[in-house]
Amino acid sequence: MSIAYYNGEICKPEEIRIPLSDRAVFFGDGIYDAAIGCDGKPYLLEEHINRFLGNRKRLGIPLPLSENELYDTVTKLCSQYGDGCFFLYFQLSRYAEGRKHACHEKRRANLLMTVTPAQMPRPDRRLKLICYPDMRYGYCDIKTLNLLPSVMASSYAEALGADEAIFVRDGVVTECAHSNISIIRNGELITHPKTNRILPGIMRGELIRICREMGINCREEPFTRDELFRADEVIVSSSTKLFSLVDKIDGIRLSRALAKKAGDGKASIGEKLTNFVYFSFVKSTK
Amino acid sequence: MSIAYYNGEICKPEEIRIPLSDRAVFFGDGIYDAAIGCDGKPYLLEEHINRFLGNRKRLGIPLPLSENELYDTVTKLCSQYGDGCFFLYFQLSRYAEGRKHACHEKRRANLLMTVTPAQMPRPDRRLKLICYPDMRYGYCDIKTLNLLPSVMASSYAEALGADEAIFVRDGVVTECAHSNISIIRNGELITHPKTNRILPGIMRGELIRICREMGINCREEPFTRDELFRADEVIVSSSTKLFSLVDKIDGIRLSRALAKKAGDGKASIGEKLTNFVYFSFVKSTK
Repeated sequence: MSIAYYNGEICKPEEIRIPLSDRAVFFGDGIYDAAIGCDGKPYLLEEHINRFLGNRKRLGIPLPLSENELYDTVTKLCSQYGDGCFFLYFQLSRYAEGRKHACHEKRRANLLMTVTPAQMPRPDRRLKLICYPDMRYGYCDIKTLNLLPSVMASSYAEALGADEAIFVRDGVVTECAHSNISIIRNGELITHPKTNRILPGIMRGELIRICREMGINCREEPFTRDELFRADEVIVSSSTKLFSLVDKIDGIRLSRALAKKAGDGKASIGEKLTNFVYFSFVKSTK
Repeated sequence: MSIAYYNGEICKPEEIRIPLSDRAVFFGDGIYDAAIGCDGKPYLLEEHINRFLGNRKRLGIPLPLSENELYDTVTKLCSQYGDGCFFLYFQLSRYAEGRKHACHEKRRANLLMTVTPAQMPRPDRRLKLICYPDMRYGYCDIKTLNLLPSVMASSYAEALGADEAIFVRDGVVTECAHSNISIIRNGELITHPKTNRILPGIMRGELIRICREMGINCREEPFTRDELFRADEVIVSSSTKLFSLVDKIDGIRLSRALAKKAGDGKASIGEKLTNFVYFSFVKSTK
């Protein structure tokens, strides 16, 4: 059963009521993180909490409980959810009385969490993507509540029947609206470097780690939209879908990826990676 | 007395309670506008409402009442505030059950309004400004709830004792964290052109209109940080402060502006403009 937490109170998500002193409402002045899990156990929780804590420090948002208490509260909420696959969301936003841009509150902040049903990731799922201009700000490495450009891109993608939008800035592929994107070319993984233009995704980190474990060379280098179409495989990584292969971009079927697959019947690098992470997820949330 | 409105209910601002179906909370997925007024009468309300309606159309957010009803509701709320100077704030945010980036809701949306005490603008006030890197997104011409960069800049300015932060992008002055900025040089007004890098401020529009009325030439052209220091006068325009002259930037006193003032005892162009708009405000809210 879906469950929520707001500043110490536990209730159902639909019962949450937020006052105007929560600066998420006026400014999107907060950060968040999200993960999936199964049967009460969130996947890679420590990594998500560490990123969350790093982001709150960068923006100087106070943590209203200790780091251990945060970890315990998140863990407990997930365990209360019960059986099945779930989506864990947690958000920290600045507190202030009255609407004023500047804020120097050093003690109070608002902590919101929800645990709601999620779909089990499917390693065999193939995604359709669509390109969208990357007009986002220069703080994309912080997971903040200023998500309007991602909302616009995702709505555009969904309206055209696509699963995700690819952000393209000056011809360069940065990331997707709510996931990272990488390509496989000549047996190597290529993914945008960690700059202020992309979120350092937990699953992006896992993708690099797993590739290295499998002996696949990784290059953290920018690549262009044209290179997407010439790639052997295109992989989207996200905390909710883990790794997913792509079969269509802007309505064009990725022919090289298809030819590769039809080749010798053996699993491709992308297939090996999506299966590997899927089993790792299943094992660690058992 | 402060008064608030949320989806049809009228209460005190501190009584407002917002559910998670208001996408302001998760995404900052909404737009807003703000004005000041006196004794129940908002200043330039039609201009603010027209901008608001234009912005909601650009983002495709449905209006939960007719345009006339919106105008009437805002006007009525202001008149209920009573005597004195007030700050009117109104916000429209998308509605959805559950947290998902894409949204195609065509009928429901959340309308929030507050009318709270404001300071009377002071035409003789001189501002201290401080520069801050403009890392904002490419939708600065829409007045959205994605305001984190303005929060960061304003907090930085306030911590250093400044009144406002000037956004500088690649050496060019775009605007301030919550106002526009213009310079007077050789008897001309120079202000950043209307592009996606600045908000088309209502008071920026008024500044240009009043200059033209006074026979002052206006050039909508980019100018640099260096040009600020060489300007005869620097003017900040905003809906809450109207026009304000600047006497210090990055801790440096603007010597030309000072020399100009000490000159012949006559009012400078900037002083004429700030006085003009102040009396226009007083007259129209009488």
